[in-house]
Amino acid sequence: MLKVSIIGATGYVGLELVRILSMHPETELSKLVSQSYVGKKYSDVYPSLRGVCDIECCGLDISELAKSSDLVITALPHGASKEIIPELLKHGVKVIDHSAYFRYRNTSTYETVYGGTHGQPDLQAEAVYGLPELYREQIKNANLIANPGCYPTCSILGLAPLLKSKTINPSSILISAVSGVSGAGRQENVAHSFCELESNFKAYGVTTHRHTSEIEQEISALAGKDVIISFTPHLAPFKRGMLATIHADLAEGFEKCSLDDILYIYTEFYKNENFVRVLPNGTFPEVKYVVGSNFVDIGVAIDKRLNRLVIVSALDNMLKGAAGQAVQVLNIMAGLNETTGLMFPAMQL
Amino acid sequence: MLKVSIIGATGYVGLELVRILSMHPETELSKLVSQSYVGKKYSDVYPSLRGVCDIECCGLDISELAKSSDLVITALPHGASKEIIPELLKHGVKVIDHSAYFRYRNTSTYETVYGGTHGQPDLQAEAVYGLPELYREQIKNANLIANPGCYPTCSILGLAPLLKSKTINPSSILISAVSGVSGAGRQENVAHSFCELESNFKAYGVTTHRHTSEIEQEISALAGKDVIISFTPHLAPFKRGMLATIHADLAEGFEKCSLDDILYIYTEFYKNENFVRVLPNGTFPEVKYVVGSNFVDIGVAIDKRLNRLVIVSALDNMLKGAAGQAVQVLNIMAGLNETTGLMFPAMQL
Amino acid sequence: MLKVSIIGATGYVGLELVRILSMHPETELSKLVSQSYVGKKYSDVYPSLRGVCDIECCGLDISELAKSSDLVITALPHGASKEIIPELLKHGVKVIDHSAYFRYRNTSTYETVYGGTHGQPDLQAEAVYGLPELYREQIKNANLIANPGCYPTCSILGLAPLLKSKTINPSSILISAVSGVSGAGRQENVAHSFCELESNFKAYGVTTHRHTSEIEQEISALAGKDVIISFTPHLAPFKRGMLATIHADLAEGFEKCSLDDILYIYTEFYKNENFVRVLPNGTFPEVKYVVGSNFVDIGVAIDKRLNRLVIVSALDNMLKGAAGQAVQVLNIMAGLNETTGLMFPAMQL
Amino acid sequence: MLKVSIIGATGYVGLELVRILSMHPETELSKLVSQSYVGKKYSDVYPSLRGVCDIECCGLDISELAKSSDLVITALPHGASKEIIPELLKHGVKVIDHSAYFRYRNTSTYETVYGGTHGQPDLQAEAVYGLPELYREQIKNANLIANPGCYPTCSILGLAPLLKSKTINPSSILISAVSGVSGAGRQENVAHSFCELESNFKAYGVTTHRHTSEIEQEISALAGKDVIISFTPHLAPFKRGMLATIHADLAEGFEKCSLDDILYIYTEFYKNENFVRVLPNGTFPEVKYVVGSNFVDIGVAIDKRLNRLVIVSALDNMLKGAAGQAVQVLNIMAGLNETTGLMFPAMQL
Repeated sequence: MLKVSIIGATGYVGLELVRILSMHPETELSKLVSQSYVGKKYSDVYPSLRGVCDIECCGLDISELAKSSDLVITALPHGASKEIIPELLKHGVKVIDHSAYFRYRNTSTYETVYGGTHGQPDLQAEAVYGLPELYREQIKNANLIANPGCYPTCSILGLAPLLKSKTINPSSILISAVSGVSGAGRQENVAHSFCELESNFKAYGVTTHRHTSEIEQEISALAGKDVIISFTPHLAPFKRGMLATIHADLAEGFEKCSLDDILYIYTEFYKNENFVRVLPNGTFPEVKYVVGSNFVDIGVAIDKRLNRLVIVSALDNMLKGAAGQAVQVLNIMAGLNETTGLMFPAMQL
Repeated sequence: MLKVSIIGATGYVGLELVRILSMHPETELSKLVSQSYVGKKYSDVYPSLRGVCDIECCGLDISELAKSSDLVITALPHGASKEIIPELLKHGVKVIDHSAYFRYRNTSTYETVYGGTHGQPDLQAEAVYGLPELYREQIKNANLIANPGCYPTCSILGLAPLLKSKTINPSSILISAVSGVSGAGRQENVAHSFCELESNFKAYGVTTHRHTSEIEQEISALAGKDVIISFTPHLAPFKRGMLATIHADLAEGFEKCSLDDILYIYTEFYKNENFVRVLPNGTFPEVKYVVGSNFVDIGVAIDKRLNRLVIVSALDNMLKGAAGQAVQVLNIMAGLNETTGLMFPAMQL
Repeated sequence: MLKVSIIGATGYVGLELVRILSMHPETELSKLVSQSYVGKKYSDVYPSLRGVCDIECCGLDISELAKSSDLVITALPHGASKEIIPELLKHGVKVIDHSAYFRYRNTSTYETVYGGTHGQPDLQAEAVYGLPELYREQIKNANLIANPGCYPTCSILGLAPLLKSKTINPSSILISAVSGVSGAGRQENVAHSFCELESNFKAYGVTTHRHTSEIEQEISALAGKDVIISFTPHLAPFKRGMLATIHADLAEGFEKCSLDDILYIYTEFYKNENFVRVLPNGTFPEVKYVVGSNFVDIGVAIDKRLNRLVIVSALDNMLKGAAGQAVQVLNIMAGLNETTGLMFPAMQL
Repeated sequence: MLKVSIIGATGYVGLELVRILSMHPETELSKLVSQSYVGKKYSDVYPSLRGVCDIECCGLDISELAKSSDLVITALPHGASKEIIPELLKHGVKVIDHSAYFRYRNTSTYETVYGGTHGQPDLQAEAVYGLPELYREQIKNANLIANPGCYPTCSILGLAPLLKSKTINPSSILISAVSGVSGAGRQENVAHSFCELESNFKAYGVTTHRHTSEIEQEISALAGKDVIISFTPHLAPFKRGMLATIHADLAEGFEKCSLDDILYIYTEFYKNENFVRVLPNGTFPEVKYVVGSNFVDIGVAIDKRLNRLVIVSALDNMLKGAAGQAVQVLNIMAGLNETTGLMFPAMQL
């Protein structure tokens, strides 16, 4: 049994990690570190887990963690990860981090986007971007994983086959995406209260959302050149789920592609993937088909009048967009079957 | 034009007061007092009101308020009303208060239920409970109105005809009620965040909710004797609306009443009321039929096996349960037609 | 591997059965019978199951079913079960039925409540009411299970310990319950459309709901005498989940019971149960703590002024209230560990 | 008093028309024509209107309608309008139609998009597209108004100032829009049931939505040349409201425009409009700020890296997107103040 601890266990990503790992046949939850709930049973914080996970939350004690854990997952704000992760690694513990801190190949991008100085370029050089569909080999032997953001996972997987095959013009990419409210985490403010969000819909971070740079990094790598994209996120009144509607012009020479040609590129690209479902011609993802699962669903249309593709990709922002992907990565790092403990379908109803 | 000011204008009751009064043909909004938003335009706090109410919020200055207002509506926490209202009254301004402070005939009940000492029994003696269907005459000449709570309004109006006519046994009353989330006001805490409440349902304040005593006071007055009731409130995942399912045994001698007999008692009792709608035999209220209106809808069934009535009453907790009732009371106090500015139907869709 | 087929597989209970059983380690889905979708892949009807259950739906062929199934679960309207089940049993297949058809000890009760003539009193005599917490021993050897209704499961489990211990007066029981919309099944009518139900709340079946008689049957059995109850169901704007607020007077001689005494009765009664969670003093169930799980949560308060208990019980109407309970029963019938494939916690978020 | 009748009164657009017109000080509801509810009181179909509109629904009798109405609003499927409207006009009654039938300058566009033959090019030539912000003068004297679609209203108003001023390159326009469920009308099918839509989100009509052609017609007129756009609608889990996120490249020569320059173009263009609110620099529309009102809110950002504007516009699809706009048009046709009966703010809460 792989002993796994979680730092930041009482946030929503932590909750999802505990929920999934409590059903995982090859892991054992060790320490649940929480700043606010030290000494409290986890199931008193989240009563849904009564009888399932009654571990007592503890404070942060790195040497204690190191002793009792084979792997630690951190679900902390960006700054906090920075302090703790190097210590964990020094103690020989593998780490999967959910912050943006180690997601950028180039620490200067992090500094530009998130502010401050990074200060750990050496560690950054070791970190692997935890998207198994693109970096499976590197993940196998990594000690430090930067788990991707939810919008990036949804967007990059929707575009990767087209970029690799040079079917689209990368500079034409425009992404309009929608997230459920859980993406913002456990929030103690009026703006995230029920009365402010129920039945509401809005764009936010218009032209300024920080995930833009993360998407651009990976899209540029796939395209083999620097790419700038247009990205607009929206907030919709549901708890979980994410859907990206992605637009891109067919590249020169590909104008005559049929939709089936395009779908063939996708199915080939993802033929060995367990969590990517390419939908048949004429069908598109819906949030309800993925929420509660680790799947990402992708559907495509061609707008023949504009020689443009419309790609729709959807996932559960808390699973394939966060905790589920972390467990997928954990499985790879631990040499387990990648789908272990993750093959639950969406709760469509 | 009646000049009306609001203290606590940027809470949700304040928002509803501003929204309704901005459409009211006989009132003029004067001062909007807000602790948190002094100097900010009201429509910057609530952008729905851009172009409708762009008044700048101001701090509390009682003599200034008195000069510029014929009537002040306070929508403040219980303690705060206590300090401010006597001052306003001294300046000759009429007040409609939304706190529980002046709702109890007996200040000792307030002290038992809300804690602390009341300290203003004389003022209490002058205060009128602002339920027009029961206290219209007293409201006409009152200087100080204690606007009823939402659960009490919904419950009392559902029971008044039966209690007055002694059709039911008062000691058998059991109320199971449901409120939308706005009843808790504008909340800055995790427990009221979207992710905690969406798709959730729970009982709260089980056996301990403070509105119980307010309902009991009015029910006892109607019954002509002290009555203890069972009251359990629940929280449902919608923003506005309230529904009470009320159970009471038919009194001795009334066991043979038909449902039409009972409905006749209701329609007679409310025949001159504009905002109480007694539903026909076989039909029951739904929250969507009243939300956005000042109506309270009442439907009744007889459980012949148990000689028991089931009364269902519904209203919009922000309107007939708070701001709408305040404006109804204001109309009466100002000698206007009671329905002025209030005859908008529910937004059923 | 136990071969399981489902008749009525494309309704919502069918969907939940397929979802759960596709993760169950000891069963194999055999035939998915559907009237409307013969020849269509299950995952085309419910795309959430793409890659998880791609079985082709088939029409009803009882001898074919009998050959390929050890156990059949029927999720059909009441009338339909009546025709099919006797045939299945004749072929030696065990059956778990979701209709009300075999739930009544006395077929005349069925006839009174659901209309028509029952016509199969012999089969009825063999049928076992599939509530494991009360009928586990009988279930072990049963060939025909009548799976309980959702309201009955929620209500009976909330009351059983009190009735068995004679702590309450059975004739005082009053249940006010709330269900999510999925309880009505997959509906093709305006009344169940999104625009009619979202943000709405209503009572329905006031004094007439058919589950009343089912609850009364089991409560009477527990009380050892005929009991009539008051039961009012409500419809709330969420997809899944159910919460019953149950009121009952303490029996003579138990007025001095403390809440801890009462909770002790519950914890003793349910000490060997895996799916009943008795909550600590002062805490109450919420729908979000059980939705997505097979748990039923129970919390209790005493209203000392009235010598009355308020019991709150909650479950997922699609799981412990339907498909989950069916799988629990299946596990018992098959001699498996009762929790096999069912220990997933609620998806609280 | 202007006598107004509605054909198709019991659909959702009809409901909104009845609701608004029942509060309108200068109109009188005359006939409410409904195929399904002849002889039934309107308030029995929509109980929210009990005591507000208790008119009995009637069948279609054109000469009767003509006698009792100065103006008729039709809220019918496309085909039905076709038959009825010419008859009404022959009887000298003015008509505002909600179908797409008379929206196209060129009947062949209608035929291509909606199928069939149009057959009434002469009537089409007289029809005016009922968007007051663009066609106010023509509306004043029109006998037949084709009320615009909701997506077109939201999109065209978001783009008109930029197209008129040639600030953007029309061929770069890409619109990603979101509608609430009421946009599909009163639906009797599983796909629109609560359980299928709650907490769900999806794209639909990808590359094929019929409103695309309507938007293109008006955008081409504004641009002075034929324009093809990309338009993708989405369905979100709320009842009312619509938000369009519109992308367009700055035209050559305008790359140095500041956001304030752009906003100046908007505020100048809409300076005399009562229902268009241009939001200040840095603020964006949200659905909750417009739902329940006839306002359309518009906010803009510049993506400097791409020389591209992101325009967000929002409205209530049932009001400015349908019934509210019809009443605005009615006011203009009747020579009333355009805002009569329409200045209610959104119900933000």
